[in-house]
Amino acid sequence: MFTATCVAPVNMALVKYWGKRNEELILPINDSISMTLDANEMCAKTTVAASESFKENRMWLNGDEQPFQANARLQRCLDGVQRLALAHGGAHRFPLSWKVHIASHNNFPTAAGLASSAAGYACLVYTLARLYDVPLDEQLTTIARQGSGSACRSLYGGFVQWQRGSSADGSDSIAVQLSPATHWPNMHMLILVVNDARKKTGSTSGMQRAVETSALIQHRATQVVPQRSKELKVAIEKRDFNAFATITMKESNQLHAIALDTFPPCVYMNDVSHSIVNFVHEYNEEAGSLHVAYTFDAGPNGCLYVLDEHVPHLLAAIQLAFPNDAQQSVEYLKGIPVPAVAVKNGFGENSASVYHINARNTLKYIIHTKIGEGPCQLGDEKSLLIDGLPLPK
Amino acid sequence: MFTATCVAPVNMALVKYWGKRNEELILPINDSISMTLDANEMCAKTTVAASESFKENRMWLNGDEQPFQANARLQRCLDGVQRLALAHGGAHRFPLSWKVHIASHNNFPTAAGLASSAAGYACLVYTLARLYDVPLDEQLTTIARQGSGSACRSLYGGFVQWQRGSSADGSDSIAVQLSPATHWPNMHMLILVVNDARKKTGSTSGMQRAVETSALIQHRATQVVPQRSKELKVAIEKRDFNAFATITMKESNQLHAIALDTFPPCVYMNDVSHSIVNFVHEYNEEAGSLHVAYTFDAGPNGCLYVLDEHVPHLLAAIQLAFPNDAQQSVEYLKGIPVPAVAVKNGFGENSASVYHINARNTLKYIIHTKIGEGPCQLGDEKSLLIDGLPLPK
Repeated sequence: MFTATCVAPVNMALVKYWGKRNEELILPINDSISMTLDANEMCAKTTVAASESFKENRMWLNGDEQPFQANARLQRCLDGVQRLALAHGGAHRFPLSWKVHIASHNNFPTAAGLASSAAGYACLVYTLARLYDVPLDEQLTTIARQGSGSACRSLYGGFVQWQRGSSADGSDSIAVQLSPATHWPNMHMLILVVNDARKKTGSTSGMQRAVETSALIQHRATQVVPQRSKELKVAIEKRDFNAFATITMKESNQLHAIALDTFPPCVYMNDVSHSIVNFVHEYNEEAGSLHVAYTFDAGPNGCLYVLDEHVPHLLAAIQLAFPNDAQQSVEYLKGIPVPAVAVKNGFGENSASVYHINARNTLKYIIHTKIGEGPCQLGDEKSLLIDGLPLPK
Repeated sequence: MFTATCVAPVNMALVKYWGKRNEELILPINDSISMTLDANEMCAKTTVAASESFKENRMWLNGDEQPFQANARLQRCLDGVQRLALAHGGAHRFPLSWKVHIASHNNFPTAAGLASSAAGYACLVYTLARLYDVPLDEQLTTIARQGSGSACRSLYGGFVQWQRGSSADGSDSIAVQLSPATHWPNMHMLILVVNDARKKTGSTSGMQRAVETSALIQHRATQVVPQRSKELKVAIEKRDFNAFATITMKESNQLHAIALDTFPPCVYMNDVSHSIVNFVHEYNEEAGSLHVAYTFDAGPNGCLYVLDEHVPHLLAAIQLAFPNDAQQSVEYLKGIPVPAVAVKNGFGENSASVYHINARNTLKYIIHTKIGEGPCQLGDEKSLLIDGLPLPK
């Protein structure tokens, strides 16, 4: 039996991916740019084993077996990596006809809408690549893209661009690294996970309907995104947080504007999400410059970009504006520890309050994380499979 | 002393007005189309008196005196109608130099964000026109427009178009009637007034910021609205409710998309508003065709267009989906009475429920109204002024 075990990180989009020009090949209508998050706080972990004795391909996600054959995206990733292995033409350690067993696990809540499929498919493709001895290059990103579009961006650390490409077969719709995590190492993130009861539209069907019905999405894709991508790349290159924050927040707003312009409309942010937006604008106003930027994906959770040195003050202000009964518990504040600092509301006895104070317990928990590296392979002792079967849950 | 007393209706936009090309003259960046609502349920009422003995121009709104000089829009309306009176050149009943006293009153909650300024300025300008004997024509709509943009549409009943115009002085930015209320007399509306605690951005500053910062608003104004205006006019002409409903809902969604694409974003709809949107799509799905269309202005309240014959069933479904402790009270259901009908949720024991049932008391009250006529003059016995001073509150 041959095995490989790897972890792959989550990535959070700055310039947003929304809308495909080809559903099958997962080809986007515009470029997107993301930051990869540290795999210590949030990652997918996958083990793939190949053995002559396996009767069929099998897959377990978080301990539960998934139908393999029925999952076209899974099959496409396996086929894709095997094709690359053949193309690389070297001597294979074992025949490609051997069946595989796959176990995958997320170390963060799958249901919270935190890009679990991007990390998951990146991890799957990366682990298959290690197993079949395929190098990490742009070819591999085209395979991950066909599992879940934004998975291609999780194959690299730091800041990553997914280039739209123009060819019909998708061969030039690839992810490239813009700069490694070490370029801007103090870039951190606070993820405010929102208590939410809303019925959801999945992002796949949401963006499909957007392309079909939004009267604004093509203008966004052809006119707005190219300009913003260019500006964001300069902001990242110069470590210009002010420009970075402005573009990031406008991009988040426009993603949700396009979702609302869809018919029927898709609504991913809720009242709490909008309170987070208000809070960020209030906070930056008080700070006198942009110290924090929000972005929201296809869910209600707020992802706040903030430099390391501003994290303690920002977190204290969040605790003030979003009071929570569990505030002091380790279950509420996850990830990198933050030293406590004092923050007062208002600038003195006669001033109006600075932060709007929200209802209690509108946040479920907070994750503190930072910029991180791409996927990496672990030792066999970290395997999620024993004798080809998943570890007990 | 000479006096005139008039009422003017509210109008609800179908193709939305959002964004000015000239703030001073209130010239819009796109055409808009509205339906005028029956003044019996919601109207502004205004009395203007002119007397040789008045020392200065004075104004009372809902019984409270307002600063007159400081109010540039008020002054502009008075000057504008007086200029028209001069231009019409007839013998005036009294000298234009006489000062005026104005009392105005809304018969519906001013704070609920229900287009009170449109009805108010339309009523002011119409009443001044009656006092100075100026005819209701397109010239008068250019005056009302300078009080509050959408006020120009409240000068006519039925369906009304505010034409953007192209001249720099605004002389061709006028309202015209598309068809009178009698053309589609069974067009009714249920207004779902939402319990709301959100901090608001006024529509004036919201649309100003949208023009300055939205990357999508010009595309909307130049490409989307002209096409939709054309299609909506055909739908109204043919009394095609299906096309009418589709355009109306898409327009509402796009207004709020543009507001969200503003920086910082403007958010007028809340979670309850979005639940109303969901409900309408569920309702139409169950009905098998479009029986109801939502529109939301710069506030959280849902305005539902529905034909007379569908009102009882729709209202019963609303009562089911939005349970309210005050459901049976006359304070909760205002306006035109509705016969009770029974509505069941779900299609039988094995079916999933049709309507998502919302939390209790998310609606404040419901107004049932319908299409209506333009402003009209009342007898002197309806005056809001006695000897030039307002009636006691």
